[in-house]
Amino acid sequence: MKRCTTVREALRWSEEIRKRGFTMGLVPTMGAIHQGHLSLVEASLKECDRTAVTIFVNPTQFAPGEDLDSYPQPLEEDLNQLRALGVNMVYSPFVREVYPDAYSTYITVEGLTTMLCGKSRPAHFRGVTTVVCKFFNTFRPDRAFFGLKDYQQTVVVRRMVRDLDMNIQIRCCPIVREPDGLAMSSRNRYLSPEERQQALALSESLRIAESMITPDTSPETIRDIIQNRISSKPLARIDYIEIRHPETLEPVTDFDEGAVIALAVIFGKTRLIDNCLIAPGSDPFLSKNFKPASSSHPESYDIEVDCMR
Amino acid sequence: MKRCTTVREALRWSEEIRKRGFTMGLVPTMGAIHQGHLSLVEASLKECDRTAVTIFVNPTQFAPGEDLDSYPQPLEEDLNQLRALGVNMVYSPFVREVYPDAYSTYITVEGLTTMLCGKSRPAHFRGVTTVVCKFFNTFRPDRAFFGLKDYQQTVVVRRMVRDLDMNIQIRCCPIVREPDGLAMSSRNRYLSPEERQQALALSESLRIAESMITPDTSPETIRDIIQNRISSKPLARIDYIEIRHPETLEPVTDFDEGAVIALAVIFGKTRLIDNCLIAPGSDPFLSKNFKPASSSHPESYDIEVDCMR
Repeated sequence: MKRCTTVREALRWSEEIRKRGFTMGLVPTMGAIHQGHLSLVEASLKECDRTAVTIFVNPTQFAPGEDLDSYPQPLEEDLNQLRALGVNMVYSPFVREVYPDAYSTYITVEGLTTMLCGKSRPAHFRGVTTVVCKFFNTFRPDRAFFGLKDYQQTVVVRRMVRDLDMNIQIRCCPIVREPDGLAMSSRNRYLSPEERQQALALSESLRIAESMITPDTSPETIRDIIQNRISSKPLARIDYIEIRHPETLEPVTDFDEGAVIALAVIFGKTRLIDNCLIAPGSDPFLSKNFKPASSSHPESYDIEVDCMR
Repeated sequence: MKRCTTVREALRWSEEIRKRGFTMGLVPTMGAIHQGHLSLVEASLKECDRTAVTIFVNPTQFAPGEDLDSYPQPLEEDLNQLRALGVNMVYSPFVREVYPDAYSTYITVEGLTTMLCGKSRPAHFRGVTTVVCKFFNTFRPDRAFFGLKDYQQTVVVRRMVRDLDMNIQIRCCPIVREPDGLAMSSRNRYLSPEERQQALALSESLRIAESMITPDTSPETIRDIIQNRISSKPLARIDYIEIRHPETLEPVTDFDEGAVIALAVIFGKTRLIDNCLIAPGSDPFLSKNFKPASSSHPESYDIEVDCMR
């Protein structure tokens, strides 16, 4: 496994890959690698000749007061896991390499980024799209892999790729869950045992809500069910529970065109998100998300969007 | 000469060029091709195996009330001129191809774009960087050619390219002038004969100012000389006259590190810009800008910036 920390090295590596006619998959991460990340890596290894992973805790997607300084960075452990899977390249730059002196350029996806998580984290997605664009420019991968746990992020990145004519396929992989249902996240380690227990309300309420959707159910009813269940946990502070269109993220009044049920809940200092995609016609097509990740080779992507027109 | 109007065709063409191992130069224009544009094309033809030109009157860089609707679009004439020079590809998309339904993504270079022309045209550079980024993503040229007449634009584009790790050389070519000194611009045709005559004050005042700079001259003195000369023209309304650092565009207190003298003056409904670069040590190294463009093969670029670190 090759490892580099500069744009120039990463660029040279990816130029060499293209010159040799190989396809390349890119998996952008902030490190603290867990099974969710590994499922993206496995999907890339399966689909592409070469796989690059970026590890970069991106300061521009954190607001002052968020957990930038405490974000876990177990780099050696991460590298070992990626090496064991057969990753070809890890790019882990320092902040000054990504944001040099007089750095001034930002990419904004309007509309999609001011709702849901963008409401409580107004600069977050600007940081995400900017750093993802930079990594895309450096590697020019054929495909890039993102987890559906950050559902809004996948929508925003796909819009950026379409709008800016980036010739990259964005692959979205299912949420990987702990055996008890909690969506995997590098931030789960912040939870106290009590918070960890009560945090199960997120996935449980989504699973229950999903099972109750019929052609006649209204989104408000579903929302109320989730809200009641999560509110019953004394440590839970709800940021939002929203039922939205899967592409536009606008509110929906029924489930006819499908929907995403997305929620963000704060436990102490830890903000957790989870979501559930409802397919058009109210067939909960992603219900396999609610089986625990038992295999080390989980199913890869469910949503495939080729952003080229 | 190949011509196309869709992203997909342009992408295929440029992929084929790369596959065959050719280098590619890109010249982004809004059409209404004049000698200034042609000097960029000639520089590209000289330096690169293949040259693509984009012709697109980009609505996002015009504010409401500006001249978007009246901007000249002599497409057939443009194509004939480019064909005659030996251009390989012209990409002239419709607006809906560049900005499809639900278009939402914009690139902003902060700081550099809120001063000088950005002050009276606050959304202008956001439109420029966004469309240039899109064309760069479609063509992935080795080099792209811009005219120094739009000096601030060259600084902004170079900053974007550096910040976003675009692996593209930005080449800046000297201002091409009419025999009497007026900087060539597609907007010169808007001028009445009287305005056209008085507009000579721009280049004349810059030439005089340049000739007066010594190691002891202060920028204020130079600014006053220019202002007095332009103010003496009854039809001229000064937008700005500024003496700035050539890279940061911040105000300078002397000419030690070089400077750009930049000005914008409005004649009736026509806003004209012009500028003059002063090299460090007060040696007016671009004085050849003030010779009329007599040759059909003008000198190409004077400023070369390789934006890769």
